[in-house]
Amino acid sequence: MTQNAGSTITRMLQMHPQIDKSPFDLGALTECIDACFECAQICTSCADACLGETEHAGHLMHCIRLNSDCADICITTGRVLVRQTQPELAVIRAQLQSCLAACKACGDECQQHAEKMSMKHCEVCMESCRRCEQACQALLATLN
Amino acid sequence: MTQNAGSTITRMLQMHPQIDKSPFDLGALTECIDACFECAQICTSCADACLGETEHAGHLMHCIRLNSDCADICITTGRVLVRQTQPELAVIRAQLQSCLAACKACGDECQQHAEKMSMKHCEVCMESCRRCEQACQALLATLN
Amino acid sequence: MTQNAGSTITRMLQMHPQIDKSPFDLGALTECIDACFECAQICTSCADACLGETEHAGHLMHCIRLNSDCADICITTGRVLVRQTQPELAVIRAQLQSCLAACKACGDECQQHAEKMSMKHCEVCMESCRRCEQACQALLATLN
Amino acid sequence: MTQNAGSTITRMLQMHPQIDKSPFDLGALTECIDACFECAQICTSCADACLGETEHAGHLMHCIRLNSDCADICITTGRVLVRQTQPELAVIRAQLQSCLAACKACGDECQQHAEKMSMKHCEVCMESCRRCEQACQALLATLN
Repeated sequence: MTQNAGSTITRMLQMHPQIDKSPFDLGALTECIDACFECAQICTSCADACLGETEHAGHLMHCIRLNSDCADICITTGRVLVRQTQPELAVIRAQLQSCLAACKACGDECQQHAEKMSMKHCEVCMESCRRCEQACQALLATLN
Repeated sequence: MTQNAGSTITRMLQMHPQIDKSPFDLGALTECIDACFECAQICTSCADACLGETEHAGHLMHCIRLNSDCADICITTGRVLVRQTQPELAVIRAQLQSCLAACKACGDECQQHAEKMSMKHCEVCMESCRRCEQACQALLATLN
Repeated sequence: MTQNAGSTITRMLQMHPQIDKSPFDLGALTECIDACFECAQICTSCADACLGETEHAGHLMHCIRLNSDCADICITTGRVLVRQTQPELAVIRAQLQSCLAACKACGDECQQHAEKMSMKHCEVCMESCRRCEQACQALLATLN
Repeated sequence: MTQNAGSTITRMLQMHPQIDKSPFDLGALTECIDACFECAQICTSCADACLGETEHAGHLMHCIRLNSDCADICITTGRVLVRQTQPELAVIRAQLQSCLAACKACGDECQQHAEKMSMKHCEVCMESCRRCEQACQALLATLN
């Protein structure tokens, strides 16, 4: 029943008055925006789920920290990418690089807990981080 | 091709170690989380699209302001709702009330520009605001 | 050596082109903006400090959760209050009420850890939460 | 009457249980955290003040856009820096680089409006952006 945010942002950007001047590939852009917002949501949830693992919270300290950073960085990256009025590529590239680094670090940490401790929420979070990392990489590639 | 963030958060919450203690109806909760994140995305886009309407930017000043508030409020509401470890209902209810008010004000303003100025991005934004307002109302109803 | 953000925002708002139409008392407004941004910073720090209390992290779970909500809510409240172009009082009042509730809940929780566990970072965080709660209350009083 | 957030975060970090393991110079760190939160506040205000410049809003479009990005990026950078439990230097360095780029672009744009249009709010915003850019540069230098 839930709508797909990805398709709604595609509709929005198609109606944007400055979209003809956009330096972005619209498909790669909306994929990346969608991945950033999803990853922000899932990392916020993973930090909270790790906190709720009462017995294991000590082992998950680094995961909670990386989840928190990754959630903040993904939201900001998503919002910067949504804006299509006179984009500043130097800022956008640097923020995409930071998002890449955050998703890589968080995805790697979650993968360990998924594999060694069978943490299912870390497995889902790892998938969101990997998807977002790849979407940032793909979008950066279209800008070079 | 894009995944549905709504279904990913449902998977996450089903694996959450504290979900059995949740005071929320899981369907109403994930619908509301999804609506908040989508509305944050679309309001950020509508503020930026209105800014890019060079000739009409003056008439859209109030819309840009409400979009900006609504985007910030929806992200925060979405993140507060995502967290399921020891939720504090007084805080959650108050933040849902604020989200309701923001979506109502922003949806009403966008409706005017959709109807009187045929602003298509305002029409899509109005739909996201209405959906989010209703999802907050429905979730609040389950908490009383 | 650090400048005082409180005085910088006062200078900004004095130069704002719409400040003559502001429904706010400028002193109560800048005090509240400053308190919101400080509380966001300190709650982010307290959540992280509690997480770093390896032996006690289990007892601090509720505190980390409330700190995280309070940080998000305070940033959003601060940003909404900073905006002085055509403010929407229904939205602002509701967000101030939510900020009040978050600072009350977080301040009460931190007070317990300051008193019973001698957690010094919780003591500083409690002070920031109380200051922000009072600043929101004072600002709300000027709006009624 | 307002307290100095900069000194409160210094007190918090001195009581942080993991601060002995911090790879940061505490003076450079707190200076940078304070500069990020101030710049976020001032950029949010400058975007809103530019929007309120009814006659000139068209000329200020790029400024509003850069202010909005810079505000989001500064808040996220400030929150990532506040966290001292098991910091991930690759993520922190990348986010500092993005903050540098955003403050440089926004500061340059504001400088033009301060000089050519005598926009006083842009002058104050330029100062906050320059201060934040330098604080990020100084902190990055201590990490290499």
